[in-house]
Amino acid sequence: MTNNATRHGTSSDLLAQAHELIGVALRDTEQVFLKELESREPFVREVLGHLMTYRGKRLRPMLLLLSAQAAGGIQHGHPVLAAVVEMIHTATLVHDDVLDDATTRRHVATVNSRWSNETSVLMGDYLFTHAFHLTSTLGSAEACRLIGRATNIVCEGEMAQVSERGNLHLTEERYLEIIEAKTAELCAVSCYLGGKFAGATQAQCDALDGYGRDLGIAFQIADDLLDVVGNEAQTGKTLGSDIQKQKLTLPILHILSQAPAGEAARLRELLGQPDGQTRAALQPALQRYEAIPYARQRALDYIVAARQRLAIFPDSPAKQLLEDMADRVTDRTA
Amino acid sequence: MTNNATRHGTSSDLLAQAHELIGVALRDTEQVFLKELESREPFVREVLGHLMTYRGKRLRPMLLLLSAQAAGGIQHGHPVLAAVVEMIHTATLVHDDVLDDATTRRHVATVNSRWSNETSVLMGDYLFTHAFHLTSTLGSAEACRLIGRATNIVCEGEMAQVSERGNLHLTEERYLEIIEAKTAELCAVSCYLGGKFAGATQAQCDALDGYGRDLGIAFQIADDLLDVVGNEAQTGKTLGSDIQKQKLTLPILHILSQAPAGEAARLRELLGQPDGQTRAALQPALQRYEAIPYARQRALDYIVAARQRLAIFPDSPAKQLLEDMADRVTDRTA
Repeated sequence: MTNNATRHGTSSDLLAQAHELIGVALRDTEQVFLKELESREPFVREVLGHLMTYRGKRLRPMLLLLSAQAAGGIQHGHPVLAAVVEMIHTATLVHDDVLDDATTRRHVATVNSRWSNETSVLMGDYLFTHAFHLTSTLGSAEACRLIGRATNIVCEGEMAQVSERGNLHLTEERYLEIIEAKTAELCAVSCYLGGKFAGATQAQCDALDGYGRDLGIAFQIADDLLDVVGNEAQTGKTLGSDIQKQKLTLPILHILSQAPAGEAARLRELLGQPDGQTRAALQPALQRYEAIPYARQRALDYIVAARQRLAIFPDSPAKQLLEDMADRVTDRTA
Repeated sequence: MTNNATRHGTSSDLLAQAHELIGVALRDTEQVFLKELESREPFVREVLGHLMTYRGKRLRPMLLLLSAQAAGGIQHGHPVLAAVVEMIHTATLVHDDVLDDATTRRHVATVNSRWSNETSVLMGDYLFTHAFHLTSTLGSAEACRLIGRATNIVCEGEMAQVSERGNLHLTEERYLEIIEAKTAELCAVSCYLGGKFAGATQAQCDALDGYGRDLGIAFQIADDLLDVVGNEAQTGKTLGSDIQKQKLTLPILHILSQAPAGEAARLRELLGQPDGQTRAALQPALQRYEAIPYARQRALDYIVAARQRLAIFPDSPAKQLLEDMADRVTDRTA
């Protein structure tokens, strides 16, 4: 009768184990990150200082470093690459704050509510350009190309998401295509680079890419679920904003595909004119069509797939931690 | 009694001569530019199509290609690099439109007034990441590093500009430092890369960097002058916005430094609470202290310096065109 929690310990146990295995490299990553962003401009330093207070769990650096460790061992360049993917992720967060007009993220004022949209835009640009500059310091045009390509796809995915807003006939396939681009691609390239710079074979690098991609999709499904079922006090984020912006996510797509034509039409009418009550008004349909369990199951399917990708690697503590991270990535909605 | 216009011909003559000399490379640049930005997302294509209608005179690609030609000859990689610097410039324009809340640029609706701030942010990001990706396709980590470093400086300069807004005691030195970073750096790296990839010596590359830098500073002084003395119908831009945003530029800095303490204090009071009349209210002081001729002279000083940098190169049609471009860069305020 083991469940995930007893088999793998809690999320904080997992973090502690990861820190034991790759703690030095994570600390190096943090130092590289901060050093690259140093500026003689007091205003840049001030905004950066604020940004540091709302950074997350370093998921992407951990994926990159654990992939490296599982594939042959962490090398000199890995903390640099780990800092790069974290910097790109932070840049997209800062720019997302402009986009979503969000007022809080991780319980702290966002850059654009504390300063202005323009500061958020410039600060995100500063993070992007430094990420590319930092990549180039490794002297590998291949690393620059991989990072460039992945960020191209991320931006294209974000544009696709904007263009599909208000499309009440979005398909699940298109939804998955978009979250793969905007979220999973950066996880995939993190794992791929971890393997590549550890001397992994091409097959191993491709397996790591697939692992990161599946994990990233599961992560985004879970994150989108939060917006529908989460609790603002717990998550520290403004919720229901996807519904407000007519951004359809998996549980909503599920009820629209399951409901009979008449009900689906009424639901689309509701979704087409969202207000503060829409999130609550959707709850009966979400329950009736078991939309939350459905979305959770889809996330779990991706997690199972992600774990299977790792079969190519010999057993190791790093591989075990990658498997555990896959299991944990949807925990936030449990 | 030759003046610039008779000695060098008109600006359109200059463009025609440049096209004769580097027309093939400019067309290649355009093709590389468009090919790199191709997307399967219809929305991306739509916004890009709109963007193409408000691009400018390709100053940076021309600088890069003429520098290459003057320094040894245009090579295979030059149109790629020329497309990169144009893409970065376009990205900063798109993001500037978010920042300045500008409603028109080059007589055409800006991306953010036609779509939204979020589309402008994402489209600018798309241009930035593609610029870095495109650089990496040359297989030179050095090119990636130079482009990364220059864009870092551009962003830092833009942040510095934001932080100095409303500073009514800005110095001319600080003003020049900011425009060097936000504008001249990209011109400098354009010229430097042109030389570097044409096999120029380090001294020649440094001379080209200096030429691009001085030209860029002159260009920005002239551009800022437009905001104070220009005519909206002629320029196709919303003018007076620097004054509205308490962004002090060279003629204003000059009157504040020349006026006696009492008058300077009154002027600062005026500048501290700008309204639709402020631009007109400043005209007497601008005339009294000959602030416009002063700013023009400073721009001319940089142009003379820019031309002198080119002395290291043997005479050639490309060198002549670079000299002519320096002369022409402030024409818009004539």
